[in-house]
Amino acid sequence: MIDHPAYREIDPWSVRENRLELAILPQSESIFALSNGHIGLRANLDEGEPHGMPGTYLNGFCVVRPLPYAEAGYGYPETVQTLVNVTNGKVVRLLVDDEPFDVRYGNLVSHRRVLDLRSGLLSREVEWTSPAGRTVRVRTRRLVSLQQRAVAAIFYEVEPVDATTRVVLQSELVANEALPAPSGDPRASPEIPERLRSELVAAQGKKVVLLHSADSSHLRLAAAMDHRVEGPANTEVSSEADPDLGRVTVSAQLRAHQPLRLVKFLSYGWSARRSVPALRDQVEAALAEAVRTGWTRLARQQHDYLGEFWSRADVEVDGDDELQQALRFALFHTLQSAARAEDRPIPAKGLTGPGYEGHTFWDMETFVLHALTYTMPSIVPSALRWRHATLPLARDRARLLGLNGATFPWRTIGGAECSGYWPAGTAAFHVNADIADAVVRYGDAVADDDFERRYGLEILVETARMWLSLGAYDAQGGFRIDGVTGPNEYSAVQDNNVYTNLMAQHNLRAAAAAAARQRARARSLGVRPEEPASWVAAANAMVLPFDRSLGLHPQSENFTEYKRWNFEATRPDHYPLMLYFPYFHLRRRQVVKQADLVLALHLRGDAFSAEEKRRAFDYYEGLTVRDSSLSSCTQSIVAAEVGHLDLAYDYLAESALFDLDDIEHNVRDGVHMASMAGSWLAVVAGLGGMRASGDGLRFAPRLPDGLRHLSFRMTFRGSRLRVDIWRRRAVYRLLDGAPLTVRHFQRSVRVGRRPVSLPVPPLRPSPRPAQPPGREPARRSLAKRRRRRGSGDGGTPKGVGPDRSDPADPAGTVALE
Amino acid sequence: MIDHPAYREIDPWSVRENRLELAILPQSESIFALSNGHIGLRANLDEGEPHGMPGTYLNGFCVVRPLPYAEAGYGYPETVQTLVNVTNGKVVRLLVDDEPFDVRYGNLVSHRRVLDLRSGLLSREVEWTSPAGRTVRVRTRRLVSLQQRAVAAIFYEVEPVDATTRVVLQSELVANEALPAPSGDPRASPEIPERLRSELVAAQGKKVVLLHSADSSHLRLAAAMDHRVEGPANTEVSSEADPDLGRVTVSAQLRAHQPLRLVKFLSYGWSARRSVPALRDQVEAALAEAVRTGWTRLARQQHDYLGEFWSRADVEVDGDDELQQALRFALFHTLQSAARAEDRPIPAKGLTGPGYEGHTFWDMETFVLHALTYTMPSIVPSALRWRHATLPLARDRARLLGLNGATFPWRTIGGAECSGYWPAGTAAFHVNADIADAVVRYGDAVADDDFERRYGLEILVETARMWLSLGAYDAQGGFRIDGVTGPNEYSAVQDNNVYTNLMAQHNLRAAAAAAARQRARARSLGVRPEEPASWVAAANAMVLPFDRSLGLHPQSENFTEYKRWNFEATRPDHYPLMLYFPYFHLRRRQVVKQADLVLALHLRGDAFSAEEKRRAFDYYEGLTVRDSSLSSCTQSIVAAEVGHLDLAYDYLAESALFDLDDIEHNVRDGVHMASMAGSWLAVVAGLGGMRASGDGLRFAPRLPDGLRHLSFRMTFRGSRLRVDIWRRRAVYRLLDGAPLTVRHFQRSVRVGRRPVSLPVPPLRPSPRPAQPPGREPARRSLAKRRRRRGSGDGGTPKGVGPDRSDPADPAGTVALE
Repeated sequence: MIDHPAYREIDPWSVRENRLELAILPQSESIFALSNGHIGLRANLDEGEPHGMPGTYLNGFCVVRPLPYAEAGYGYPETVQTLVNVTNGKVVRLLVDDEPFDVRYGNLVSHRRVLDLRSGLLSREVEWTSPAGRTVRVRTRRLVSLQQRAVAAIFYEVEPVDATTRVVLQSELVANEALPAPSGDPRASPEIPERLRSELVAAQGKKVVLLHSADSSHLRLAAAMDHRVEGPANTEVSSEADPDLGRVTVSAQLRAHQPLRLVKFLSYGWSARRSVPALRDQVEAALAEAVRTGWTRLARQQHDYLGEFWSRADVEVDGDDELQQALRFALFHTLQSAARAEDRPIPAKGLTGPGYEGHTFWDMETFVLHALTYTMPSIVPSALRWRHATLPLARDRARLLGLNGATFPWRTIGGAECSGYWPAGTAAFHVNADIADAVVRYGDAVADDDFERRYGLEILVETARMWLSLGAYDAQGGFRIDGVTGPNEYSAVQDNNVYTNLMAQHNLRAAAAAAARQRARARSLGVRPEEPASWVAAANAMVLPFDRSLGLHPQSENFTEYKRWNFEATRPDHYPLMLYFPYFHLRRRQVVKQADLVLALHLRGDAFSAEEKRRAFDYYEGLTVRDSSLSSCTQSIVAAEVGHLDLAYDYLAESALFDLDDIEHNVRDGVHMASMAGSWLAVVAGLGGMRASGDGLRFAPRLPDGLRHLSFRMTFRGSRLRVDIWRRRAVYRLLDGAPLTVRHFQRSVRVGRRPVSLPVPPLRPSPRPAQPPGREPARRSLAKRRRRRGSGDGGTPKGVGPDRSDPADPAGTVALE
Repeated sequence: MIDHPAYREIDPWSVRENRLELAILPQSESIFALSNGHIGLRANLDEGEPHGMPGTYLNGFCVVRPLPYAEAGYGYPETVQTLVNVTNGKVVRLLVDDEPFDVRYGNLVSHRRVLDLRSGLLSREVEWTSPAGRTVRVRTRRLVSLQQRAVAAIFYEVEPVDATTRVVLQSELVANEALPAPSGDPRASPEIPERLRSELVAAQGKKVVLLHSADSSHLRLAAAMDHRVEGPANTEVSSEADPDLGRVTVSAQLRAHQPLRLVKFLSYGWSARRSVPALRDQVEAALAEAVRTGWTRLARQQHDYLGEFWSRADVEVDGDDELQQALRFALFHTLQSAARAEDRPIPAKGLTGPGYEGHTFWDMETFVLHALTYTMPSIVPSALRWRHATLPLARDRARLLGLNGATFPWRTIGGAECSGYWPAGTAAFHVNADIADAVVRYGDAVADDDFERRYGLEILVETARMWLSLGAYDAQGGFRIDGVTGPNEYSAVQDNNVYTNLMAQHNLRAAAAAAARQRARARSLGVRPEEPASWVAAANAMVLPFDRSLGLHPQSENFTEYKRWNFEATRPDHYPLMLYFPYFHLRRRQVVKQADLVLALHLRGDAFSAEEKRRAFDYYEGLTVRDSSLSSCTQSIVAAEVGHLDLAYDYLAESALFDLDDIEHNVRDGVHMASMAGSWLAVVAGLGGMRASGDGLRFAPRLPDGLRHLSFRMTFRGSRLRVDIWRRRAVYRLLDGAPLTVRHFQRSVRVGRRPVSLPVPPLRPSPRPAQPPGREPARRSLAKRRRRRGSGDGGTPKGVGPDRSDPADPAGTVALE
């Protein structure tokens, strides 16, 4: 947890803040952010101030700013899309006997916020004494509906504690809100000077609608609010609206303990095409439906949606309560980022903050959709349809770059390349194979013929065409891909990056296979008869450098000949390295920002022998500094595969706690969706050893010493499984769907009506590999012990007792030995 | 010549413009620019307008602007220095009966400008009829004094042709002159919005002084003018001055053919330290001395200085008048760029235009100082002292980059790195070896012990230290230099660039040798006893990749495995490639912007066998597109060495005509100093086969078919030689200094009091290598024939007649067989 007593309480189904610390307000705003993938609300206080960073986001609603260059070059993107803070509907200001409720004044008697992971509500309970000595209690609940995509709602209740008090509530829509100046490095997070232009203001009764448009992006936005008020007879309500401010004012005189209740319904919409009247009608219709539904039913819908989610995705951990909480928190945010994105991207920070300008990277496919494919597969096609919808732009970009097919952007909102640094943008062609891999993964897991025919095939074909034009045959007949950047951005622009080449190989083969399955569609896409064979030929000829003296694959050609980074001379406060060392120097040393070859060991494990994996994992451990949130989950997965279970556990915890512990000190800008989703992968593909392909599911479950039991759920080809792992046995259970044949280690097992219990083979111990000095992951066993000792106000984690025997299999289980 | 009849006249000692074409005004302003290396005046018309780009420059006087980045990175320069247009003292406006003389109005009866390469004067003769029908003749002469560094002068004479005319001359100093908006790509040539701030205005009699300062760079600038007037008794003179305008007005009523003469003396100075009064006194003192000298003696001094220069540097060509003119024009500009720079840099465009923002690159050492070392060696130490003076900044930069020693900037004015794109800036470490090479070359040629002790050694030591920290030993004991950019910027950031590694090797060895010669100084520089041995060890272990299947060196590791650029599919109008293709794509193909490995064949010829040179030259010819002005001279040199004499001739002509022919279509921004100086190298090191080292001079002279005779002069260790090359013989003549032993091909010859004549051995013919389609150099033989046919108003070149026998050696020559 963020190392602050405000966050000390650990609960398996919620995240709690037991007092308000202004110093960590920006982090809290991200941690407690609510979203449904379409609307995102940072956890700004209801009264608007103080704030770290006000934030209300609509997926895809952006402005466009010019990209400056010190020295320009051909093909550099000239503009960048930036997610903007839209009309803020969260504000409910409170006046207590004419003094504004502001936690910086008077006396904040108590403050408590709870993000309930089962109800999906963010609740807040505050008791505050005004400078004049009036004490009020405020209870609020907030939700962003997972069922009604355009809707958010706030329940607000205030009551005087001790005396009759005049109270005024101002419920607002605030457009063109002033934002704090970009903190720290002014280049990293640019100021967006553009104001949204008011196009319509309407106020009627307790309802206000504001429409604005962004001139630079030609997008139009509508925000609307309506209210239900419950108070004493003297309660008065009025409304008014300016171009940038809609306000409904509720005033009442309250006796002690007499509550005034306000339910605020919000609806949002945006469009690049729809007219002012059409967009206005859209948000007013959504608002009417929300009002009709009412607060209680909205909250119940939310609970139902999440109940379904947890039944598909929950992970249970026995022996590490903090990890239990973190994993559910991570799954909750993963869901929030994607649930109702619907043909829109899933940004690296979801809709929880302005980090990376709201851009979407390969994280979406390789981490977020990866986890969702096996938990909420119904969400996946809409995200991939968004990629498919950007194909025209990706084709244009390929043309501009002199390539065939399509090349997807490194970072984007609407599909246009927004990366201003080609060595870590344009050159990172692997994003195309990552997208193709997500298409293949979804196809393997869901067998969705309709999706493949309408969307998947075209993505596979266009990326395969790109690879064929990007690579080239050398004199020895090898197919080379030179001058590209793999996942490890510290080693930009290299030849024959093994990860890229293996993923391209997979992409090329998958395109050929899909074209063979979808012959008619392939013809309609203009796939010439000889094309699939040319893809397979390039895939089969793919150059994969191998260092014979080390017996492992270099990350890219020559990489293992570079000098090792001087980790010993690198100060601990000089990480992340890219903030303290020049790119040119990182580029020419053996130093790994994030799993690269190790990610290939996971995603293309079929291309390596077990011994190669072991050697390579250990070697790259000594070079990997994890200056990225896209690393520890992968290291956890491969550590588990090669038998370093304690290390896998350490990385799993790091990945799951990435945001709660604010490991990169930038949670203020939003949570890290890849690490969130990656922690589920670390459980399931790591400790569970799950690998899925067209051939089905494999597992190799194993527990580290620190855990007593672990269970997870996943869905594959319509069958929902629950897997329980104990120290010596694993139990596979079919929750619904048709019986499924899976592999448990080397053994094939049919999981049908009755659970199947299987022994976990013993593990040959191997020495834990060394990380660069100072970059070792926290030892989970030590961290748990420390927390147990230090926790005063938190619950006592159960830990792992001396009993190390597994429980008996439940009745009805088929126990195999 | 620029393909325009205005330029058609060819004269061996001048460049002439016989009519005024506004369309090529910007080019003419560069071509006819005058400079002494300290002051630069573009050839703007005296009356100020029309203009292409007004330009008055003081070497080193710059403003500073922030460098923007789309995505910033550690160590990126945050600001850039930009040469600015300073107070314009060239303006002499003329009123003819109250109508301003402006060539765009009335009738320009005749216009002629001549840049005389022996007198150093730019003269102009104009006859103009005003819209009201008054005709005047204007004669002007302009010089930037090579003897009085701070001084320029203008002789201006006007006379009515046919009737009594009232005439007013306004001689001005104009500060903060409005410049035309940057044309074409707005990113390439940024607008500088900074105004210089007036600090002093003084007008007295016919003298005006203006002082300004640049707030961003904290530099202060003074410009002063004084006048001598000669006219009829009715002539009146007055002066006035504003902060940004000094003006001396001369009015007279002139009878027909009665002249009014004005001599305008200008002096300039700038300082980062001197006060307003001190700087004012400095320019007024220089001005007083100029006035005392007077126009006639200033012009005579200029002629004398140039007489000395031509006696050291002249090249005579028999058989190609156009080349003869171009070579002298190139030498003239080379001299102008450097003559009085004195502890200041020599920018890539000299002081002839705003191109590259007035920055100095490695061109200075590798091309400009290279030629000057053998023609005007006295100029060289001051330029290298400037580099030496920037060592503190270069050390800081090395520290910032995590390196030892010093690393010089890729582009700069004052020594700070001004490159905003690290793959073609910071990564181009070869600049350090190029500077060291210039130090070594100067030492070999001049044996200047004092210079070596005070300046040279420190440059060599600090760059050697840098190389040792930049490179690293690999597992096989080789010393690798990874991730650097060689001269060919299309292949940025490569491992073991052969040019870089060979030049670094040379640098390391030279540092050790110099430290051994200058033991006391080395100690005072903190050279530890073991350091020189470590430099030699790294040099001896230097990794030099070699492609055994091709039998030649790849430009960098893996280069010959890349796919060849698809030249066949590249449209002719898609050069230079960097304007039409992305860097990432160029980077991963075999395509060469400019000589890289071929430059190593020249500068480190000792590291290659003759057969390796032949194979490598032919191979890289097929890949080299010459999208840089730093290529054809080197290609000429190596073409000559490996026996392609016609090709050497073609490249020599291209290099010499680079600006007169406006080959890159950017002469408007200034002339290309490297190509100018390089054309002398192409004569002397190319056709003359000159190689100099600590072991002395070698020659391997040979003429291409198109030339009958070629002679050049050069100085080595105080001895001035003249070399005459005929088809079958070469004659070496000592012009002054001690007798010198040189090698003529394999033979050692002492050149003393009497000229020595030696036979030129026959050349084994070899097939001309192919260039990329469409990128072949113009065939000189065809170009000459075409020009001969097409020239209407130019002289008829002599060409080469049917007589192909060499003349008899002159009396007194020692003829050896």
